[in-house]
Amino acid sequence: MSAQRLADVGEFGFLSHLLPQLSASDPCVRIGVGDDAAVVDVDAPLVLTTDALVAGTHFQPGWLSPYQIGRRAYLVNASDIAAMGARPRWCLVSLGAPHDTAERDLLRLMLGVRDAAAEHDATVIGGNVTLSPVLFVSLTLLGTAAAQPIARSGGNVGDRLYVSGELGGAATAVRALLAGTPIGARSRARRAYAEPPARVQLGARLAASGVVSAMIDISDGLLQDLEHICDLSRVGARLDIDNVPVFAPGSRRPSAAAIEQALRGGEDYELLFTVPPAKASRVEQIGSEVGCRLTQIGILTQEHGIVAADGRRLGAAGAAGGYDHYRRGRSRRRAPGRELGKDGRHGS
Amino acid sequence: MSAQRLADVGEFGFLSHLLPQLSASDPCVRIGVGDDAAVVDVDAPLVLTTDALVAGTHFQPGWLSPYQIGRRAYLVNASDIAAMGARPRWCLVSLGAPHDTAERDLLRLMLGVRDAAAEHDATVIGGNVTLSPVLFVSLTLLGTAAAQPIARSGGNVGDRLYVSGELGGAATAVRALLAGTPIGARSRARRAYAEPPARVQLGARLAASGVVSAMIDISDGLLQDLEHICDLSRVGARLDIDNVPVFAPGSRRPSAAAIEQALRGGEDYELLFTVPPAKASRVEQIGSEVGCRLTQIGILTQEHGIVAADGRRLGAAGAAGGYDHYRRGRSRRRAPGRELGKDGRHGS
Repeated sequence: MSAQRLADVGEFGFLSHLLPQLSASDPCVRIGVGDDAAVVDVDAPLVLTTDALVAGTHFQPGWLSPYQIGRRAYLVNASDIAAMGARPRWCLVSLGAPHDTAERDLLRLMLGVRDAAAEHDATVIGGNVTLSPVLFVSLTLLGTAAAQPIARSGGNVGDRLYVSGELGGAATAVRALLAGTPIGARSRARRAYAEPPARVQLGARLAASGVVSAMIDISDGLLQDLEHICDLSRVGARLDIDNVPVFAPGSRRPSAAAIEQALRGGEDYELLFTVPPAKASRVEQIGSEVGCRLTQIGILTQEHGIVAADGRRLGAAGAAGGYDHYRRGRSRRRAPGRELGKDGRHGS
Repeated sequence: MSAQRLADVGEFGFLSHLLPQLSASDPCVRIGVGDDAAVVDVDAPLVLTTDALVAGTHFQPGWLSPYQIGRRAYLVNASDIAAMGARPRWCLVSLGAPHDTAERDLLRLMLGVRDAAAEHDATVIGGNVTLSPVLFVSLTLLGTAAAQPIARSGGNVGDRLYVSGELGGAATAVRALLAGTPIGARSRARRAYAEPPARVQLGARLAASGVVSAMIDISDGLLQDLEHICDLSRVGARLDIDNVPVFAPGSRRPSAAAIEQALRGGEDYELLFTVPPAKASRVEQIGSEVGCRLTQIGILTQEHGIVAADGRRLGAAGAAGGYDHYRRGRSRRRAPGRELGKDGRHGS
């Protein structure tokens, strides 16, 4: 493909190249891309989320290929759908791009969305492309829930706290990228950042099993997102920091910095969930079934706030701060945007 | 409200001020703002669209108040839902804003969305706010269709062509704003730009009546959008230019410039639809019922392309060009983004 700019081919030209790539056969889609709006038949409760990636905010030049930007825009949304115990089905992509964007890059970005969605049997059913001084991808993802969707508010005192995977890898990569420290494109940390896990299979399995009382995906950092569960469930938590699965490749014991990234780094897109004690024995088996490490890291308590096993209070803000990229005095790097209403508190 | 910046209050602060304003009682909304994703029960075919407004592309400083930006972001999407004959129900708002944005302005923008949606009994059920070098509002709107959704592709040779309202007002306002010509904030042209009509009631009534074979909303200009219907319906059209309802306040006869804006200006957000001849007699009554001027402006023909009554060929591009703000040599002012797949042709 030639390195034509959007200014050369125009939006209609771009769309004529893109649309043949987006055909998908989903019997529920009555009208897909190509009309004023898409039309789908919905056969279950609909679960909806939207999140945007913005150049200069969520990534810097060279951090992600266009294809990876598309994949990541999809995956961070899929993680939200997973956190409800639902399955992604359809997405709409709102693109903004400068007029000198290479058409090839924008096509690759969209193919990244398409391919990541296809891995979950989800399809692109609509979208929009507009001129913008800065590249952005705002993606809306719709899923359906086979089981009762899992809210953040269902946790109870005594429930065990679990987390999937390992935490801190993505934040470690971002820290290195920001500092200019060499970090291989295929390193585990870099992949943790570029390719969020989006635990769709796990989320759906947990919801179907009926063992989970509350669930959230970790985008803002473990402590911050645990606070969200605690606030909405009106409980506190005791966190066994020694049990937190810290991303620390090659190390026998994770460094203090690695632990800090696991607690407050964010962008992990792992699932954090709570399980009534009588059902905790079933969690391990579910982890085996879906091939995902699940670790018990604490318990919900009556006392407000989050404390460590030794009684020390753990604030989400801490020294490094949770994710709130608007707050002064924080590094205003990337950090996925905040879901409207994910949080009703004042700045952390 | 104080003139706090987002950098002062943070995202969580902003959300704590915003969310109490967004509560809405819709029995279909199981989980609204406040969790990983929203959950709704859908009782009919779902109709989905997304469109973005970007500062510097769709509006310049001083053109729209923050409240109007929010209203307009909603209304341009509602127009797409109307063009399917569906009714808006739920929206998700993805906001990008510079860190020095006044919190007050962002709240007003969201209240503009909320209030415009409320006029259609639609509600904000989710969203996202993220740091961005430039302000953007990307809105996804979901509607439900009581009747069969009306596609662009259903037109047949002999069908009469109708348009709602008047055309060219919004483009006239934008032209004046770009030229720095004084134009009152309350002038009809300015209001046509700031407050797109979004013919929801008309669209739903037309769909329910069963008289419409194809429908589109005019965002790119009458000729351009007529071309979309023609291309997808595999027909041509004869357009009676003398019958086109041209926005020309105070004039007995519209000027050539006013006619040009009506044909190619765009941003009208009126409905363009086709009606089989046997059903054309019912259109007038529907217009009376919903209080909307409906004008017959042509007929679908077998010959490819669009011609005037005198046989002259009418290209959508013309001298001024249809809307494709990426194409070189066009004024790259605003122009709502192109819906992915609204068009499969090469640049006009």
